Amino acid sequence: LEKVMKGRQPTDLMLRCTILDSEGTVKTISGQFKKSDLCVEHRLNPRDLRKIDSRVPNLVPTILIRKEAILVNILHIRALVKADAVVLFDTFGSSDSKLHSVFLYHLEHNLKIRNSGAPYEFRAIESILLSVLSALEAEMVFIRNLVGGLLAELEDNIDHDKFKRLLHYSRRLTSFKNRAKLVEEALEDVLGQDDDLVAMYLTDKKNGIDRELDDHEELEVLLESFSKQVEEIVNEAENIESNVQSTQEIVELILDSNRNSLLALDLKVSIGTMGIGTGALVAGMFGMNLTSHLETTPYAFAGMSALSAVVALFVASIGLRRLAKIRKVGLSNTHNRMTARKPWLPLPLRRRSSDLW
Amino acid sequence: LEKVMKGRQPTDLMLRCTILDSEGTVKTISGQFKKSDLCVEHRLNPRDLRKIDSRVPNLVPTILIRKEAILVNILHIRALVKADAVVLFDTFGSSDSKLHSVFLYHLEHNLKIRNSGAPYEFRAIESILLSVLSALEAEMVFIRNLVGGLLAELEDNIDHDKFKRLLHYSRRLTSFKNRAKLVEEALEDVLGQDDDLVAMYLTDKKNGIDRELDDHEELEVLLESFSKQVEEIVNEAENIESNVQSTQEIVELILDSNRNSLLALDLKVSIGTMGIGTGALVAGMFGMNLTSHLETTPYAFAGMSALSAVVALFVASIGLRRLAKIRKVGLSNTHNRMTARKPWLPLPLRRRSSDLW
Amino acid sequence: LEKVMKGRQPTDLMLRCTILDSEGTVKTISGQFKKSDLCVEHRLNPRDLRKIDSRVPNLVPTILIRKEAILVNILHIRALVKADAVVLFDTFGSSDSKLHSVFLYHLEHNLKIRNSGAPYEFRAIESILLSVLSALEAEMVFIRNLVGGLLAELEDNIDHDKFKRLLHYSRRLTSFKNRAKLVEEALEDVLGQDDDLVAMYLTDKKNGIDRELDDHEELEVLLESFSKQVEEIVNEAENIESNVQSTQEIVELILDSNRNSLLALDLKVSIGTMGIGTGALVAGMFGMNLTSHLETTPYAFAGMSALSAVVALFVASIGLRRLAKIRKVGLSNTHNRMTARKPWLPLPLRRRSSDLW
Amino acid sequence: LEKVMKGRQPTDLMLRCTILDSEGTVKTISGQFKKSDLCVEHRLNPRDLRKIDSRVPNLVPTILIRKEAILVNILHIRALVKADAVVLFDTFGSSDSKLHSVFLYHLEHNLKIRNSGAPYEFRAIESILLSVLSALEAEMVFIRNLVGGLLAELEDNIDHDKFKRLLHYSRRLTSFKNRAKLVEEALEDVLGQDDDLVAMYLTDKKNGIDRELDDHEELEVLLESFSKQVEEIVNEAENIESNVQSTQEIVELILDSNRNSLLALDLKVSIGTMGIGTGALVAGMFGMNLTSHLETTPYAFAGMSALSAVVALFVASIGLRRLAKIRKVGLSNTHNRMTARKPWLPLPLRRRSSDLW
Amino acid sequence: LEKVMKGRQPTDLMLRCTILDSEGTVKTISGQFKKSDLCVEHRLNPRDLRKIDSRVPNLVPTILIRKEAILVNILHIRALVKADAVVLFDTFGSSDSKLHSVFLYHLEHNLKIRNSGAPYEFRAIESILLSVLSALEAEMVFIRNLVGGLLAELEDNIDHDKFKRLLHYSRRLTSFKNRAKLVEEALEDVLGQDDDLVAMYLTDKKNGIDRELDDHEELEVLLESFSKQVEEIVNEAENIESNVQSTQEIVELILDSNRNSLLALDLKVSIGTMGIGTGALVAGMFGMNLTSHLETTPYAFAGMSALSAVVALFVASIGLRRLAKIRKVGLSNTHNRMTARKPWLPLPLRRRSSDLW
Repeated sequence: LEKVMKGRQPTDLMLRCTILDSEGTVKTISGQFKKSDLCVEHRLNPRDLRKIDSRVPNLVPTILIRKEAILVNILHIRALVKADAVVLFDTFGSSDSKLHSVFLYHLEHNLKIRNSGAPYEFRAIESILLSVLSALEAEMVFIRNLVGGLLAELEDNIDHDKFKRLLHYSRRLTSFKNRAKLVEEALEDVLGQDDDLVAMYLTDKKNGIDRELDDHEELEVLLESFSKQVEEIVNEAENIESNVQSTQEIVELILDSNRNSLLALDLKVSIGTMGIGTGALVAGMFGMNLTSHLETTPYAFAGMSALSAVVALFVASIGLRRLAKIRKVGLSNTHNRMTARKPWLPLPLRRRSSDLW
Repeated sequence: LEKVMKGRQPTDLMLRCTILDSEGTVKTISGQFKKSDLCVEHRLNPRDLRKIDSRVPNLVPTILIRKEAILVNILHIRALVKADAVVLFDTFGSSDSKLHSVFLYHLEHNLKIRNSGAPYEFRAIESILLSVLSALEAEMVFIRNLVGGLLAELEDNIDHDKFKRLLHYSRRLTSFKNRAKLVEEALEDVLGQDDDLVAMYLTDKKNGIDRELDDHEELEVLLESFSKQVEEIVNEAENIESNVQSTQEIVELILDSNRNSLLALDLKVSIGTMGIGTGALVAGMFGMNLTSHLETTPYAFAGMSALSAVVALFVASIGLRRLAKIRKVGLSNTHNRMTARKPWLPLPLRRRSSDLW
Repeated sequence: LEKVMKGRQPTDLMLRCTILDSEGTVKTISGQFKKSDLCVEHRLNPRDLRKIDSRVPNLVPTILIRKEAILVNILHIRALVKADAVVLFDTFGSSDSKLHSVFLYHLEHNLKIRNSGAPYEFRAIESILLSVLSALEAEMVFIRNLVGGLLAELEDNIDHDKFKRLLHYSRRLTSFKNRAKLVEEALEDVLGQDDDLVAMYLTDKKNGIDRELDDHEELEVLLESFSKQVEEIVNEAENIESNVQSTQEIVELILDSNRNSLLALDLKVSIGTMGIGTGALVAGMFGMNLTSHLETTPYAFAGMSALSAVVALFVASIGLRRLAKIRKVGLSNTHNRMTARKPWLPLPLRRRSSDLW
Repeated sequence: LEKVMKGRQPTDLMLRCTILDSEGTVKTISGQFKKSDLCVEHRLNPRDLRKIDSRVPNLVPTILIRKEAILVNILHIRALVKADAVVLFDTFGSSDSKLHSVFLYHLEHNLKIRNSGAPYEFRAIESILLSVLSALEAEMVFIRNLVGGLLAELEDNIDHDKFKRLLHYSRRLTSFKNRAKLVEEALEDVLGQDDDLVAMYLTDKKNGIDRELDDHEELEVLLESFSKQVEEIVNEAENIESNVQSTQEIVELILDSNRNSLLALDLKVSIGTMGIGTGALVAGMFGMNLTSHLETTPYAFAGMSALSAVVALFVASIGLRRLAKIRKVGLSNTHNRMTARKPWLPLPLRRRSSDLW
Repeated sequence: LEKVMKGRQPTDLMLRCTILDSEGTVKTISGQFKKSDLCVEHRLNPRDLRKIDSRVPNLVPTILIRKEAILVNILHIRALVKADAVVLFDTFGSSDSKLHSVFLYHLEHNLKIRNSGAPYEFRAIESILLSVLSALEAEMVFIRNLVGGLLAELEDNIDHDKFKRLLHYSRRLTSFKNRAKLVEEALEDVLGQDDDLVAMYLTDKKNGIDRELDDHEELEVLLESFSKQVEEIVNEAENIESNVQSTQEIVELILDSNRNSLLALDLKVSIGTMGIGTGALVAGMFGMNLTSHLETTPYAFAGMSALSAVVALFVASIGLRRLAKIRKVGLSNTHNRMTARKPWLPLPLRRRSSDLW
């Protein structure tokens, strides 16, 4: 515990980062910087960098707007966007990722476009959000295929190996959905606060241009567009989730119903066994070394054999008839009598409930 | 992954669209247009057209209000409404649909009415929303009939084939409900923002008429009316859903209860078998080739037969009595003693809880 | 589908309605009026009357405030309230209802009171809401008695006929709750919008009296009072629902537990049968027509009988002991060892969790 | 139904009430007053008194602020607080309650304090809320003990008598939680409306002192404090509820798992019986009165006995091996192969999901 | 009950507290103070101290802002922060805790820093929140390990001892999540009210500096940062919870499916037993001491033995074939026929639902 509290005290940690300058060219790759230097240089509070600190994985994405910079921390991207530079922090173990290099390539490309109209910082944010979106979409497609394939297999055959896979997929789906939802919320949070949106016009701020509190349409359209696309992904994840849910429920019903069928067959077998047992009892009695006075009656053997078979069949048929009565299950029988009891109810209310079914 | 990111870069894709002019007559049917030309012509951002792009199916409906146009993307309709033209984008594979031609016919008809009072763009939107509503209602009725029919069949007989169908219907119902809900939300979103509503008066904007921020009653009444009708559909879908849900729960209880009945019958059979077995044991003992000294006793056979039968019945009756005790299940026995223990509770609180049941 | 879209186009349908004049006397009973005439006379949009149209049942209640009239459409009542007249639309099949005549009687009576202080339109609305409330309360009481009776029966005996009734009641309860909730929401919607509330002072509007936007206390108190009472009904419905829910859950547990008891008894019987079978096997061996050299030993019969009985009892007792071990289920055994493992947890947190249980 | 509507028309009912004057001394105990007189005297609308009417039990607590009085109707207390008097309405059957007398004693005491600084009406409200809080706390403690005791008993032994009690406790807990929640909501409602809060300064109003709309800190602190305490109770009730819920779920899993154990033992017994049966079949064959040509072979008896025993054991061992294979259930086997299939996923996403477990 | 009400009346209780002065040095350790003295000294209402009162454990954390002090009551910390002093109240039994001493050390250290820029009261609050956060994180890690370990064990083997532990862990997890959520809510509550935030600048207030209502960025950033971190913890707790939930559901499915397998094996055994029984019946018949006229036929013994074996196998094979038919369960068979029935549905709607799977 002590360690936890001490770990929180400002220490001069090194952070590895990649820096792009105002032309969009990479200045430093995975260079090491002191945390405190970074704070001073970009006028940040040490607390702001705590989340960037690559050793602590974090679930909740944040977009922090500071005086001269925007700190973006969404999924695999931890970046500091300024009016004339972008600092990408290396997250633990992600430097070799293909995703990261595609992102870097796109970011460079996007920052180099001069005449796009959008200011430098917005082009950086667009690249970041695009990379986030691609990552989410890729995982979405991957999970959808996994789950879709499994549900298709369940169509053919229900067995418990599939349940185990279902568990792993649904854990993963839930975790994915939550992450996507949190990304959406982070975007919505920024969109919901006019002052934050205006504060994100870093180039204007740098150039000393004052903006009205509601003059941020360009940025709003940009963020809203991404927010809508993330919402779409969240929606699809929820769709898959409810699909998995209803499949689970129905599979349980099918297993239950199947169990009843098994039990019914078991019963038939038991009944048969009992019948045979009764016949065997009859036969056993005549097998006793006692005098039944039928020992020499000519057709006694055939008669007794027939008798024991008849007893067996008779006992079994009683059992089977009882079983048939229990097996017949439906939802309806008592219903009719009951509904007849409510003639005084206000008509309009009654009509509606009977309309539905 | 690379593909995904590149696929997002502006490419000059062709879009097929049908264009209606200000008189409501169809100018072009399924003509091909460059995406970039469309953007320039209608003063749109390429990002806006991304959702229209017919190859990506999308779940979340959107109504985007731009400077000179309204972009509507709801269910099967992807349209660009301007003050003097309507551009309908062909969605993948839907050009041959009957629904589409009915919609087109209605739209043409509606746009041709000159003296209706409503401006051109509102008549277009009305037609679009009407088509959306019809599609939703048609599917609602279809699903309601499917589910209603299945539940009616469950009244008669519960078997697992029906559960499989229930699964497919309930998946479908959930997906339908979500779609309807998203349509409602899209409408509510527009209704909730005064500036968007005012910006939708395209004809006025074109004619240079400035509107007050709260002067949009006509449009509000139009959208609200559709929103209410979609809400009605959502409500009915939720009703059906909760019906399916409670049916599933009760079916599970019935299957459980039925299983207990089966088990009880099984037990009776087992008990019978055990009884018979006991009898057979007695008979078997006398079947041993050992001297029991009763070999020649005259009534020993009858006596022993009777004895084994009596033993069988005795053992069975013990079992059956035990079974009867277990089978008697209710919710009440211990309850009375327990409620007697609470005489000091504040009266008004106590009365209320006992009032209910 | 085509039909659906055409059915939506303005057609000159006839509506049957009952009209009360400004004195509260009935002018016309179930007279037929053209829809278009009604629109012109009361300055309504044809779209407004679409919901009133009696052939389409509707779930979502609405209170629409128009220039000269208030359109109320709640449950069985579809009315147009003006400053000097009330038009009641006949809903499909409801004209003969007792509820309706009580309502009409009350409405007439209420409208005739001259010196009540409240304007004409509020007295009309009060009567309408009172009728709605009575209908809801009547159904509430009815359903409560149904469900309460059923739950009381379940106290005595759990069988699946009762589950079927439970299904029907809980479907009905859900549908009722939803309806009541929607009524509450409709009232809240009106209460939430100051401009709507002010616009409902039809008499003042007719007399040309302008009202401040927040001068509507009288109406607010009236609507709030009904809203509270509907809330009470919704609350009680939810209470009953959660009661039904927890009963279902516990019934399932009881059925499960009962099934375990049945299985345990079944096992005892099976074990008994196995024991007897073992005895029978011993006996059967000596029944073989083979030379055991004991054929003439005097006490061999008694000995072997005793042996087979002893074998039977021995086998059975092993089985029963195993069963007893499995049957003993509780929640606690491993728990103690585990909780002992957490001595370093922050005290205040630990105390709290152990406080509870 | 008719009765219901008539019962709502203003009738001159008598109400029993206890009145305390401005000195805090009881003036009248359970005196009878005409409803209409009360309305006139305290300038109330008859509708306001409808909820006070003691014969109708009500779930939703209300605090109504009228021109000269505050009408409080929470749980067992129905009171009219004025600037110089408190009218307590006797609720049906509660006059003899101990709770009520403690409340009355406290109220008298509190009203008599002259120099407390707080105005008369606030001291009255404080006493009322304190009594409500005590009642809620008392029931909370009572239910917590009941449920806690039951859950402790379940630790030792799971049987269905306990489920029945659990049902009754959880019904009660739900109903209690709802009541507490409604009390909280009623307090929050008042706290949320500045005009209501200001209107509650009855003494100031009587003395003609006008208050600013946001000058109500004293009252806000008073109400907020009670609201927080009720929130605490609601929170604890919810905690207990979720505890009960998770206990139910786990108990179901334990019963299920126990059932599987029972079934497995049953299977062992069945397998044993089958083995024995096979042995008996062998023995039975040699018991046939047919010539097996072994009748006189010296060791045939021992050989055949051994054979039948061996057959019995062999058959049983096959069965038991199969059983052992089925019994081994875990969640893991297929998992490893599957997770190996996803090497291309974006690293940061992958890391996170594997971080968790 | 009486006791409860009396216990609420202001009594002069002693509270033990530790006081730090404006230099950050501890002045008193666990000194005893009269409640009333504290109220007077710090200008508090006795009601404010009720929650601090150490004997009542409380779940809902509160941050109360008073004229000259901030009262913080979160988890294990109950403190009064002033512009020049911090009063820490000893909570029942927590004085010896390691957590507490780490906190005290950190607080002292933090208060002593002179040139940090942040005022005295904010440094105190930062220490308090940091301690709360550490405690939450420590418990989070602890619970995550417990649950993670248990779920890993379930991978290998499902048995009911693990369910019992799961119950205890999930109770604890729920209770932990609720506590964390309440801490988050308490922070959000303060953040949501501008006047509270401004009122927390105690040093400025003391120095007579008036602040604008929206001039509180420093404090906002401080609180928001902690709020985000608590949100992260809540999120992770919810993730674990949904993991546990889905594991429970799948475990239930696996147990169900396993039970079906057990039943199927049971059936096979029963069928085998029945077959053997039938053979035994045949053998038993020839064991009767009756004349079958085959007594001396040479191959009768072999023939009859074979016959009874054939009968046994025949009966068993019938049973096994039936079983195989029941065992084959999938989700698909009836589906195909049904989907063929819907060719008229609007294409765009249809496409989407089939797109998903």
